[in-house]
Amino acid sequence: MSEMIKQLTIIGVGLIGGSLALALKRAGAVGEVVGCGRDIKHLQRAVELGVIDRIEMDMAASVQGADIVLVAAPVGAMEAIFRILAPVLPEGAVLTDAGSTKGSVVEAARAAFKLPKGELPANFVPGHPIAGTEKSGVEAAFSDLYKGRRVILTPTENSDSDAVARVRAMWEQAGADVVETSVAHHDEVLAATSHLPHLLAFSLVDTLATMDDKQEIFEFAAGGFRDFTRIASSDPQMWHDICIHNEPALLKMLERFENDLDKLRLAIANNDSDYLLQVFTRAKTARDQFCDK
Amino acid sequence: MSEMIKQLTIIGVGLIGGSLALALKRAGAVGEVVGCGRDIKHLQRAVELGVIDRIEMDMAASVQGADIVLVAAPVGAMEAIFRILAPVLPEGAVLTDAGSTKGSVVEAARAAFKLPKGELPANFVPGHPIAGTEKSGVEAAFSDLYKGRRVILTPTENSDSDAVARVRAMWEQAGADVVETSVAHHDEVLAATSHLPHLLAFSLVDTLATMDDKQEIFEFAAGGFRDFTRIASSDPQMWHDICIHNEPALLKMLERFENDLDKLRLAIANNDSDYLLQVFTRAKTARDQFCDK
Repeated sequence: MSEMIKQLTIIGVGLIGGSLALALKRAGAVGEVVGCGRDIKHLQRAVELGVIDRIEMDMAASVQGADIVLVAAPVGAMEAIFRILAPVLPEGAVLTDAGSTKGSVVEAARAAFKLPKGELPANFVPGHPIAGTEKSGVEAAFSDLYKGRRVILTPTENSDSDAVARVRAMWEQAGADVVETSVAHHDEVLAATSHLPHLLAFSLVDTLATMDDKQEIFEFAAGGFRDFTRIASSDPQMWHDICIHNEPALLKMLERFENDLDKLRLAIANNDSDYLLQVFTRAKTARDQFCDK
Repeated sequence: MSEMIKQLTIIGVGLIGGSLALALKRAGAVGEVVGCGRDIKHLQRAVELGVIDRIEMDMAASVQGADIVLVAAPVGAMEAIFRILAPVLPEGAVLTDAGSTKGSVVEAARAAFKLPKGELPANFVPGHPIAGTEKSGVEAAFSDLYKGRRVILTPTENSDSDAVARVRAMWEQAGADVVETSVAHHDEVLAATSHLPHLLAFSLVDTLATMDDKQEIFEFAAGGFRDFTRIASSDPQMWHDICIHNEPALLKMLERFENDLDKLRLAIANNDSDYLLQVFTRAKTARDQFCDK
């Protein structure tokens, strides 16, 4: 049985941090949850919803007494937050995050903590829960968000094994299936399965939204279009940050996708039935095999 | 109140034709439903499921006595079917279809019926129900498929107004909201909202399926990916046909999309935050406004 978390401090109490708090509370795995953020009304709502127990607007004060500090803010805000935390983080506290990109978060920590030889803090364990919906904000939080979902931890070569174990235990108590991988591999895989699809969905909806007959176009859209574009209802700032902060891996995947799409375009233009059927059949087989239908 | 359909003949009894039959039966709007197709086992299953009342493997025989003949086959099969029907279609029968492309279906009818001056039959009313799922086949048919969904009719300049009214009444009795538009406009709008999204979903899944670490990639995929790629589980032959048969409109939309995607790629490469935020915000606003969340 894992040790109880006496105090969890969440910096950025939205869907991700809020759902973790609810799950840990339900599991009886956390004592007090302290919430810190920029918007006091938002944090007051989190208290009303039973997501956090105490508001602490001052970030340095919010982490005092914490066993674990979770930074669940857009990845673009990580470095500024880490700079505030670096001089005040209590010695026994584990620092983790829920950012969708890991290379940039690790670099943000390196820049903020300024350790000798570019080392990273031993109590820093980068993480990424592969869960979420197109909704955001603490109102959307629910305790089952992580049930059966993966959480990827990308420990650095400086991460203390005890710190990793504590972060792993926290997510497992929230119902998640925790895996560990390298920072680079995480960023490549997520570019493929999450960042590129979001980019395509945003791009397609925007292409249609800028057409003359957009009213009619959206009215004629069927269920398939609603599903395909659901992720284009995601938070623009969050996805802006992800695109900027996972640039190398995302551009590599995007170029690969554009090349493949170009081949499909040529196949259509050339009535190359064999090629089209081959691609569509391979895609259907892969999706049916790997995803629920 | 609309007149009862004494006999509806469905050529190609799958999700689309089967769901129409179930809806009309539930509404008490049809006497006998005759099913014709290539696969007798499939038609026998349709009888077992109560979707059709009678099997007629011979297409010429299947349309005898029909008030309405619905061709619900992949668009690539339309011309061959129309060639068989042209000499045997009873005078009083209305011919309609459920093809996802309309220009190619109209051209198929023109080639098959070979009327003077390239005219089209007065009893021919092209149609397209904007409904369906990634599933196909009569097993997936259900009577509520068309409830509140749009059916687009694209009457030709030769279509008889009484024939149009009869097809409209049929879909309305199945619960659909019927609209009329031109063939060209239909093909442009559907290229944007349906054909291009399917192409992108197939293309993305295939890109991932051909990567070395595909196993891991699909395992790490979250709910957003499942929704985004659901349409890649659609029938490859059907979508092959649609791509080939709506080539001009689809290529036009695809080129427009590729241009816009290229601009996004450059914006990411140049850290152009303003551009990214502008596109993502416009897309989210459009989707939230037009689609259910």
